Amino acid sequence: MVTLSDVAKEANVSKMTVSRAINHPEQVTPELLELVEKAMDKLHYRPNSAARALVNNRTNVVKFITLEDIDTTEPYYMNLLFGVARGLTKEQYALQLVTDIGDIGKSGDDGYIITGARQADYDLFDAFDKPFILYGENRHGYDYVDTDNSLGEKIATKYALERGYEHVVFIGLDVKEPFEYSRENGYLSTMQQAQMPTQIYRAANHSHQSKKVVLDNWEKFPQNTCFVCGSDRLAVGIIWALLEKQVKIPEEYGVIGFDGVFLDQVSNPKITTIKQPTFEMGEILAQMLLQKIKLSGAPQGEVLLEPKLVVRDTTK
Amino acid sequence: MVTLSDVAKEANVSKMTVSRAINHPEQVTPELLELVEKAMDKLHYRPNSAARALVNNRTNVVKFITLEDIDTTEPYYMNLLFGVARGLTKEQYALQLVTDIGDIGKSGDDGYIITGARQADYDLFDAFDKPFILYGENRHGYDYVDTDNSLGEKIATKYALERGYEHVVFIGLDVKEPFEYSRENGYLSTMQQAQMPTQIYRAANHSHQSKKVVLDNWEKFPQNTCFVCGSDRLAVGIIWALLEKQVKIPEEYGVIGFDGVFLDQVSNPKITTIKQPTFEMGEILAQMLLQKIKLSGAPQGEVLLEPKLVVRDTTK
Repeated sequence: MVTLSDVAKEANVSKMTVSRAINHPEQVTPELLELVEKAMDKLHYRPNSAARALVNNRTNVVKFITLEDIDTTEPYYMNLLFGVARGLTKEQYALQLVTDIGDIGKSGDDGYIITGARQADYDLFDAFDKPFILYGENRHGYDYVDTDNSLGEKIATKYALERGYEHVVFIGLDVKEPFEYSRENGYLSTMQQAQMPTQIYRAANHSHQSKKVVLDNWEKFPQNTCFVCGSDRLAVGIIWALLEKQVKIPEEYGVIGFDGVFLDQVSNPKITTIKQPTFEMGEILAQMLLQKIKLSGAPQGEVLLEPKLVVRDTTK
Repeated sequence: MVTLSDVAKEANVSKMTVSRAINHPEQVTPELLELVEKAMDKLHYRPNSAARALVNNRTNVVKFITLEDIDTTEPYYMNLLFGVARGLTKEQYALQLVTDIGDIGKSGDDGYIITGARQADYDLFDAFDKPFILYGENRHGYDYVDTDNSLGEKIATKYALERGYEHVVFIGLDVKEPFEYSRENGYLSTMQQAQMPTQIYRAANHSHQSKKVVLDNWEKFPQNTCFVCGSDRLAVGIIWALLEKQVKIPEEYGVIGFDGVFLDQVSNPKITTIKQPTFEMGEILAQMLLQKIKLSGAPQGEVLLEPKLVVRDTTK
């Protein structure tokens, strides 16, 4: 096995210099750094991440905490998680996935990425003694990454109006959370600007629920209505309702989803949707957390990424 | 911060004993172990996983390698991954997710869990100098965990016959891989036992592909046919074809899927399917790999878990 000493010999520098080049590259000159890196490459030397972690008084482990039931989560978590993993692997960090909040203290870690948090969970977070970043908007001052939810529904609502739908209805998620208020706000502000009357309904995030909402209120939705939805799962249920009513999609009724991971593409017809940059959000979550760990918990702020409209078969 | 010395003092034993109790519990008496554990509990001492890893000449990191394109994978990977994570976290192991095989050597690890492997990848594996376990059947002698694919399609085919369908057709995945041969074998052997004529079609794992296969061969599928499928994604496409032909599901045509994660439930109608125990498979993958690491690479064998029939709305 190649050791630190071998690298030092090859580079003709001290062991201390090699160690510093690995653990505190900012403390050595670019020339020295290059020398050491060349020697490491030549000898195929891999610094032991456990040893590095100890030197820095770290574990090089981050916990990814999911507070929602994983059986009911959207597949977009997979993309988010792979984004997080990409960001961590670049810095030789590993992750532990935690679904039971009681498991958090059972092993060492340097910080947390938290998804699926609801306002009721905030008391828990205040007790954490490690840096953390939330996935999802909050009004509590916690650092977070999210899609620009308001912008997403502005884009959707504007597109529905441009395509000539005379009625645009918002079907949102039945949760009292900031991301949902932002989405509704995007719809409302666009409609008000266009001087159009607004209609909002809310449903639990299950296709059967949104189907029921549409069927229960069917007389309120005349031909040439477009449904702007808080998720692709809600959009799927609305499509089911429209198929049951034997009306034409997209000529008589339009549907625009939100999320753009998997479900929009396996639906029939495929769903016009607002696509979240889930992989990128994951990568930024990791980068922000590692930065926060490095800077001993310094705030990293709020990051909203732009979603994109993907036009498919449920809008004219 | 509580240190090893504090624990030693509290338990009234040497630091060496505390260290041994943590890293090699099998080397100390149950009485001593209890003493040390009580002291650790009392002082809320958490052994630093990086330090433990160094003592054992390990990194306490396992890589989860996905060789399929993650955008096109089924959502069941999420469940599999959380199962793996559960198994690892119990032993204070962390994981790195790797999607680019070139990233494997870039940081330290103790072993690999490999998913989405095809036979063309086997040369790569032979070069690995770390223990690994495959997710997915292989005939190459590599340790693996999988669903009992043959049993799954036996159950599906038998159920189709019991429900009175006169024709049972198999729509499989268009891949030359052991899991697919096992599934076809489950169908074929059940049909032969029942002295029924067999019909096999194959399609790439996309709903639009299986839809096309059914429409292209429509005249070969008389009323009272049940389609036994290699995946829920294929089943979804067959449902689309049947809806287009305006025939009745499940009275005139039946459909049975395979996988049982997410897609079966968001489909309309919901799909009768063979549910894989994905979370459990993930947990066993982790357990087998950690055991293999502990035993310096000793073979762990082949583990096939039983799938279950879940009856929903696409069979009579």
